[in-house]
Amino acid sequence: MNLIVMKFGGTSVANIKKINNVANIVEKEATKQKIIVVLSAMAGVTNEMQSYIDEIESNEKLENDLILTSGENVTIAILSAILKKRNINSIPLLGWQVPIITDGNHQKAKILNINKKRIMDFLKDFDVIVLAGFQGINIEGNITSLGRGGSDTTAVAIASAVNADRCDIYTDVDGVYTTDPNVVSEAKKIPKLAFEEMLEMSSSGAKVLHTRSVELAMKNNLILQVLSSLTQKPGTLIVDDKKLIEKEIVSGVSYSKNESKITISGIPDKPGISAKIFGLLANKNINVDMIVQNISQDGINANITFTIPNNEVHYAKEILENNLGKINFKSLKTDENVSKISVIGMGMMSQSGVAKKMFETLANMSINILAISTSEIKISVLINEEHTDIAVKSLHDAYNLKMKK
Amino acid sequence: MNLIVMKFGGTSVANIKKINNVANIVEKEATKQKIIVVLSAMAGVTNEMQSYIDEIESNEKLENDLILTSGENVTIAILSAILKKRNINSIPLLGWQVPIITDGNHQKAKILNINKKRIMDFLKDFDVIVLAGFQGINIEGNITSLGRGGSDTTAVAIASAVNADRCDIYTDVDGVYTTDPNVVSEAKKIPKLAFEEMLEMSSSGAKVLHTRSVELAMKNNLILQVLSSLTQKPGTLIVDDKKLIEKEIVSGVSYSKNESKITISGIPDKPGISAKIFGLLANKNINVDMIVQNISQDGINANITFTIPNNEVHYAKEILENNLGKINFKSLKTDENVSKISVIGMGMMSQSGVAKKMFETLANMSINILAISTSEIKISVLINEEHTDIAVKSLHDAYNLKMKK
Repeated sequence: MNLIVMKFGGTSVANIKKINNVANIVEKEATKQKIIVVLSAMAGVTNEMQSYIDEIESNEKLENDLILTSGENVTIAILSAILKKRNINSIPLLGWQVPIITDGNHQKAKILNINKKRIMDFLKDFDVIVLAGFQGINIEGNITSLGRGGSDTTAVAIASAVNADRCDIYTDVDGVYTTDPNVVSEAKKIPKLAFEEMLEMSSSGAKVLHTRSVELAMKNNLILQVLSSLTQKPGTLIVDDKKLIEKEIVSGVSYSKNESKITISGIPDKPGISAKIFGLLANKNINVDMIVQNISQDGINANITFTIPNNEVHYAKEILENNLGKINFKSLKTDENVSKISVIGMGMMSQSGVAKKMFETLANMSINILAISTSEIKISVLINEEHTDIAVKSLHDAYNLKMKK
Repeated sequence: MNLIVMKFGGTSVANIKKINNVANIVEKEATKQKIIVVLSAMAGVTNEMQSYIDEIESNEKLENDLILTSGENVTIAILSAILKKRNINSIPLLGWQVPIITDGNHQKAKILNINKKRIMDFLKDFDVIVLAGFQGINIEGNITSLGRGGSDTTAVAIASAVNADRCDIYTDVDGVYTTDPNVVSEAKKIPKLAFEEMLEMSSSGAKVLHTRSVELAMKNNLILQVLSSLTQKPGTLIVDDKKLIEKEIVSGVSYSKNESKITISGIPDKPGISAKIFGLLANKNINVDMIVQNISQDGINANITFTIPNNEVHYAKEILENNLGKINFKSLKTDENVSKISVIGMGMMSQSGVAKKMFETLANMSINILAISTSEIKISVLINEEHTDIAVKSLHDAYNLKMKK
């Protein structure tokens, strides 16, 4: 049986007109294969629901999830009813009706199991399943939400569970670009990317797909496509790197302004200090990214600089200052005005000189590098936030990305 | 275990402020016993959902029910979260989580079964269950809505299933009145009514409770109370007639303007004609109420007059005219400007002269009676709609209802 999963986010189902447009796209694909459509709630509804939670100042996770997941009932039923009017044999399903079983972590639940047999049974009786994204139930039978990027995760998880031929993620951009087109007007759409590249792009600032769903697709070797619900053009395919005929040395440049730098100075230069610092932060689920460690001038005390997401900087500072006794540092400074710029490409693995070109390009623009981190297919540098746009533009030029076709 | 069910409709939960008020009432009762609260969706939300259905012109019952039942997720979660903030051990439950099993009749499903054991288990762990009204699931696992008065039905059904001590129906009036206070300013709140009286009042125009929930309460001998969520006053108790110390001859006067009269003239006066006419209408689920049959002057042809709800008059006319061959009548006239006025009282059974007083009172006001129907505890007459208010006022006076305390 040919089968694809199609996911549409909140802006694609924001009103009846837009849901009719989604129906057009689904109708076209339904002539070729069986379909599972995954939908979010109408854009706006999720905010309205969050405003109720804020108004009552609710910290009750079970209740909040019940509120946050109510919008999908409406969108899946509307789309399914429209499809039926067009004589497409469709059924709407909520998370509990599959069921999609998650752990008990409300607001950021992980999918533990999907009842594949029941889905296949539905696909015998129906040509299209319209499934509520973002939601599941835990083993106690309470509704759980999957957190940020949750509908993408639902789509990828269900596509993996049923071995779908492809998972199409419809969004408001028509693919993944060599860099942010709002910063560099010559940015080009990338026709094909490796999972690893997409993963590095997502985690280094490109917002088109959530890291979690890319990881899940990679693990299950599921072909992803990012495309627009507004144009009928092909989007960007994200595939196993073995399927890439030519591996680009640099596929794209991404940036993140959501970075803060913390510098701890005057730490006794003894073994185990780094482990102590990063252990404290890890225990509180704070993600540390780039780390630079220097021995200070006097040869006795060390300095450590590292980056964390902006919204965690105050919490991290508090944790470290409360543990001054354990770490015994002299001073702690934070800087929220920093950006991370990354160049990403599968071809980098077999090619030298990529890093050299990056550093030279930035040096030519008199941009100071505050920290560096690398992986096999990515080089990231930390710079002052004010230089973000010019750094991205220069690197996009330097690696000839505007010449991509 | 002491246990009551409390039901709040859409206007009582229309916004956070009002849900906070509901929380106040629940909090007070929760000090005395375990509670099951049954909620509707926010007033306004149900209309919004209906507008989606209208906009897409959906006749898909399964999908429409999914849309129509989505609002309760929000109200039950909000109330439960507010109760938890007040340290009340509460849990929100949707229909499928109980489960409340219904037949497959979408939009007017009947409850077949409620999992009592599971509710009792929840009541061991929690002091308050906040349950979504109006919804259940059928045996295929699809969400069904119970139709008009659905949340009242949920409340009475769950109260019956768990043998609750009482079922309190909170509404925007503070009880059942001797007649509509908008028509007769001296109307008095009735402290106690028999099920049969409430049933007759509901079916003859009093809108405070839906017939279906009163029937269900009567069948299960469940004490009902109708009261206001805005005042702290006791409402009207609806109980088994054995619990009424003094049975009123007339408890109340109700009216319904939602009546149409159909007169079919020149029907051959042969056996079986009435059966044919009312059989045709019954087959299409049209409820016929009062029936008057006359032999016409010529002694050969008969006339039949009967009443049906306003919104079904055109449909009924169509059915009858399409079957002219079978019934063979000469003419069919309809009149939508009629009202049904009813006087109701348990004491009527053992007391004569009630009907006489009714007819005399109306005659004194020169109001013509178009049809009469009676039960053991009710007398209804059909009159021209323009005389409704004066008829209700005169009868309320005649039976001394303004003197009730």
